[in-house]
Amino acid sequence: MEDVDCRVPGFKAAAAVAGLKKGDALDVGLIVSETEAVAAGVFTTNQVRAAPVILCERHLEKGKARAIIANAGGANACTGAAGFEDACRTAQLVAETLNIGSGEVMVASTGVIGQRLNMARIEKAVPVLAKDLSAEGIPQVARAIMTTDSFPKMSRFDGEGGGKSYRIVGIAKGAGMIMPQMATMLCFLLTDIHMERGDLRRILAASAEATFNRITVDGDTSTNDTALILANGLAGNGPLSAEDMDMFTGGLRQVMGDLARMIVQDGEGATKLVRIEVTHAASPSDARRAARTVANSSLVKTAVYGQDPNWGRIMAALGRSGIEMVEEQVDIWVDQVRIVEGGLGKGAEAEKEASRIMTGKEFGLTIDLHQGSHTDTVLTCDLTHEYVSINADYRT
Amino acid sequence: MEDVDCRVPGFKAAAAVAGLKKGDALDVGLIVSETEAVAAGVFTTNQVRAAPVILCERHLEKGKARAIIANAGGANACTGAAGFEDACRTAQLVAETLNIGSGEVMVASTGVIGQRLNMARIEKAVPVLAKDLSAEGIPQVARAIMTTDSFPKMSRFDGEGGGKSYRIVGIAKGAGMIMPQMATMLCFLLTDIHMERGDLRRILAASAEATFNRITVDGDTSTNDTALILANGLAGNGPLSAEDMDMFTGGLRQVMGDLARMIVQDGEGATKLVRIEVTHAASPSDARRAARTVANSSLVKTAVYGQDPNWGRIMAALGRSGIEMVEEQVDIWVDQVRIVEGGLGKGAEAEKEASRIMTGKEFGLTIDLHQGSHTDTVLTCDLTHEYVSINADYRT
Repeated sequence: MEDVDCRVPGFKAAAAVAGLKKGDALDVGLIVSETEAVAAGVFTTNQVRAAPVILCERHLEKGKARAIIANAGGANACTGAAGFEDACRTAQLVAETLNIGSGEVMVASTGVIGQRLNMARIEKAVPVLAKDLSAEGIPQVARAIMTTDSFPKMSRFDGEGGGKSYRIVGIAKGAGMIMPQMATMLCFLLTDIHMERGDLRRILAASAEATFNRITVDGDTSTNDTALILANGLAGNGPLSAEDMDMFTGGLRQVMGDLARMIVQDGEGATKLVRIEVTHAASPSDARRAARTVANSSLVKTAVYGQDPNWGRIMAALGRSGIEMVEEQVDIWVDQVRIVEGGLGKGAEAEKEASRIMTGKEFGLTIDLHQGSHTDTVLTCDLTHEYVSINADYRT
Repeated sequence: MEDVDCRVPGFKAAAAVAGLKKGDALDVGLIVSETEAVAAGVFTTNQVRAAPVILCERHLEKGKARAIIANAGGANACTGAAGFEDACRTAQLVAETLNIGSGEVMVASTGVIGQRLNMARIEKAVPVLAKDLSAEGIPQVARAIMTTDSFPKMSRFDGEGGGKSYRIVGIAKGAGMIMPQMATMLCFLLTDIHMERGDLRRILAASAEATFNRITVDGDTSTNDTALILANGLAGNGPLSAEDMDMFTGGLRQVMGDLARMIVQDGEGATKLVRIEVTHAASPSDARRAARTVANSSLVKTAVYGQDPNWGRIMAALGRSGIEMVEEQVDIWVDQVRIVEGGLGKGAEAEKEASRIMTGKEFGLTIDLHQGSHTDTVLTCDLTHEYVSINADYRT
């Protein structure tokens, strides 16, 4: 993947090889804002929360941030009080090196759960990171936070508001343990817009709901899900009109949507990206539950891998999802090909055509329940031999 | 697997090759009771219910049965009114051939969802089945109902009650789309005890709750789950004392527990059987939800396949399960080896020992939540390359 231009006025970044991952890969990254940035975050709803998640929430109470330090090679989750100390110490190391307050440093970690971080290596890496900071460094951080990801994930939006142009850049990592409930694994969003903290929080949360909370790789919600946004105001814009807010909201959603999509595309072992759309559900929660149940069904996901429009498995998933439905009213499409009408198969020809579509890397499954007026969409991927290989061998 | 002695006084059975499955395998079976048997059943909670499930429920309203006809090679689910007609016609064919009422015939089907049964082949098979009926035929029926099962599943209990000895025999099929909510795929239980219908129903439902409703292979609940029991009374026993009832309840639970265990053992692609036990949960529903969430986690199941005591994934699954928990109070054991104490890993030596245990074909994961007094257990298996192969290629 080609690096997109990820520069944002006032932000610098660097990545380094600390030795936390196996091999010689980038595994720690630092992003710094020249000026104090307005900051907001959304985090995992998992009750088991990693130390850096707890620390970030605490530091975000003031709504300000100057830096993000992130590492792969260890999630710093289920590490108890000592793990929390490690996260605090990491923030402190960055603060001392950059001469900022440690409460202005956000910390994010990803990797194996239940192992302490190698603090000696992080201690060594921080000064190196600080020395290497540059406006061009953000794509390197996208690389440093990769675990089983096969490509770095970045996206950009250029907008205008309050009389000035501004930019939003986002980077993320994903791949496995992906069924975000409030955010995804790790996502950092940087913008030079000037915006009130309350607005930033609200827009971030709504956008996460529409993007990261609509994807699944394996139905497992991580302990470390973190999406942070830093807005440093260097665009110098004045007050934002309603239209300006709409553009920013749309832009942020585009960036987060891009990243969410890349996370599923790069789902562990995934070969196909599937957009599960449920229409005419009786309620918003029915629409979401139906889409999510189908999106997480191992039988549907293996059928997708096998390029088999095995709609009986979709019907069975709907039937166990607990939604309001009438079997005889369900229609199912693979892209534009209807394979089920009124709960019954449309026959061999339709399935053959659907099967042909499913040889592609990306397609939609649309399920029309004919119960009401609500729609929801979840992105998912297939369940493959490679997923099993990756996750049977992950720690060994 | 050696056939156990599956004879039950007054029951005869036969199986045949109707040509519904690919190849030359037994795919239709018939079980007949010489006399009218008291009958009860439990069925899938999936809202999408196969035609034979709907028919069985209707026929069971009278609480009597004389015969069960079962086929593999087609689930007769999502087949609409025509599919329901097929199920009725199947019952009628059996009734005419045996000269009994068609309301006394139970019908069960398993296989691909959404395809009509080949009725011409069933019509041809019924007289062959009727001609071949014998007291030794039950194991053949256990073979005929196999789909992706790798071995036939049967179990037996010999008891005494009301002054007479009696027998309970059960056969079942399982393998995939297994997370029963009321029963498993197909299970037929035969006994010569004499028992009131109300007692039989109550004991069957309770036993299903404790056995089939405590297993999962892939978290997908089938459209065809059916467990039927026929008690023909030929043991000639008198009224059953409380102790007699306890013995029968225990015996039935043993038979159903055996079959449930075999279903997980033979889970599609499974190489390991894992007993997930959650103790000291705050409520019965918490205990069950925690056990089921861990048992269905793709990440836990692949770690089991990889013989990796990756307890971080267990903690993450608990954390997203929605139960009451305190991370710092969780203990986790692999058999007798504690790998987590107070939410923290016990270190490399314990994990090494746990990993050694996990090389075996069967072990327990015990999770102590220290929140209350409730316990639950779910049987699960690993998620393997073979599961993906089976389910990516199932219809093709």
